[in-house]
Amino acid sequence: MQLVGDERLDYLLAEDLKIIQSPSVFAFSLDAVLLARFVHVPIQKGSIIDLCSGNGVIPLLLSTRTKGSIVGVEIQERLYDMGIRSIAYNQLDHQISMIHGDIKTIAPSLGYTGHDVVTCNPPYFPTPSDKEKNENEYLAIARHEIMCTLEDAIKASSELLKQGGKAAFVHRPGRLVDLVTLMRKYRLEPKRIQFVYPKHGKEANTILIEGIKDGKADVKLLSPLYVYQEDGQYTPEVKEILYGDKG
Amino acid sequence: MQLVGDERLDYLLAEDLKIIQSPSVFAFSLDAVLLARFVHVPIQKGSIIDLCSGNGVIPLLLSTRTKGSIVGVEIQERLYDMGIRSIAYNQLDHQISMIHGDIKTIAPSLGYTGHDVVTCNPPYFPTPSDKEKNENEYLAIARHEIMCTLEDAIKASSELLKQGGKAAFVHRPGRLVDLVTLMRKYRLEPKRIQFVYPKHGKEANTILIEGIKDGKADVKLLSPLYVYQEDGQYTPEVKEILYGDKG
Repeated sequence: MQLVGDERLDYLLAEDLKIIQSPSVFAFSLDAVLLARFVHVPIQKGSIIDLCSGNGVIPLLLSTRTKGSIVGVEIQERLYDMGIRSIAYNQLDHQISMIHGDIKTIAPSLGYTGHDVVTCNPPYFPTPSDKEKNENEYLAIARHEIMCTLEDAIKASSELLKQGGKAAFVHRPGRLVDLVTLMRKYRLEPKRIQFVYPKHGKEANTILIEGIKDGKADVKLLSPLYVYQEDGQYTPEVKEILYGDKG
Repeated sequence: MQLVGDERLDYLLAEDLKIIQSPSVFAFSLDAVLLARFVHVPIQKGSIIDLCSGNGVIPLLLSTRTKGSIVGVEIQERLYDMGIRSIAYNQLDHQISMIHGDIKTIAPSLGYTGHDVVTCNPPYFPTPSDKEKNENEYLAIARHEIMCTLEDAIKASSELLKQGGKAAFVHRPGRLVDLVTLMRKYRLEPKRIQFVYPKHGKEANTILIEGIKDGKADVKLLSPLYVYQEDGQYTPEVKEILYGDKG
């Protein structure tokens, strides 16, 4: 396997996996790790789709939790290419595939209403300045709603999911109202939410949310997750998520 | 001042106030106390309306935080009557008044879009069983959406508030999605939310939410509030809210 430019082959945290990353193109965040742990997945079988998949970090992590098939969809060819090389390196081609495509038009080829779970860690920020856009187009597209808005991600998830299927998203707290109103609009009734706080006494900086297609209206707010202790170290809970037994 | 039936004159917690309560008719909850502390109120002046006011607990508590005028609206005459006697007992008639009326039709008499703040601790539960309704009609009406649905409360709040005015509600987490979608529908954009957890490691059991009429979409999730410590005692934060310096 060949690394391109400033790419590195990084350990995928607690898992016995490696992943290709690049500081100038794409490196996964804690948010992706939290989403891959938060979502409910069928253990033995099923079809899972990860939208806005980047370098395939969520499919790789999910492969440790399910024997179901996992497809990542990524619009940037450069990131898609990192994803397929990581999948091959980890010898997971039998379980994970990547599609280089646009989530807005992906449902016909993947199949409407045929999937059990959709995950998505979408771009968080509405519109980049021209400066941000020009400086690094890879990062701008991954972070800003240039190619994919929150509504695009939620609509595509709903198109792909069967009745009773689960859609899980990670986003910024400022978009909570948009998230839940759009999820309800597209029949993905929010059922479980976890708020992530950087530390005690601070405002939340991340939301994890899971909806069920055509689910009954009633949402549970899980115990909050704190990332850092007072001393700046990760909390035991986050250490366990990141490093597992190796922590 | 005369007490009726099983009424008691209770201390209103941290404040130098007393309030008439009755176990068989109405006794205020921690939720009301948390809402009265959570909402932003103007300090020196302004017009504040409390809907579904019960025995007037929220107006009484707010009187310690603002010099503005406060009006409580309560549909049950028996509770309204407890409210006016408590206001008189505390010699707060110059600041607080109670109206015996229906929030669904109150806007014309109080004045459309003329108020700075609306608070509401509405009935939480959709529909009571006949048994619950028969056993105690006072409590059934206070707890169940018999006379007032969540949508009624949010619609009335929006009618009363001026642009930029604040509406604050307390409710159960299961209704989070209803709350924020209805608030947006009635132009009360959610801006601050605090989740209340009974203790660490448990799911939230209460939501405090404040919206601004015609506010910009962007919500902050405040640091969570925990009610009990591991040993079953109130947390210091809640002790401070309940008992203040006397704790």
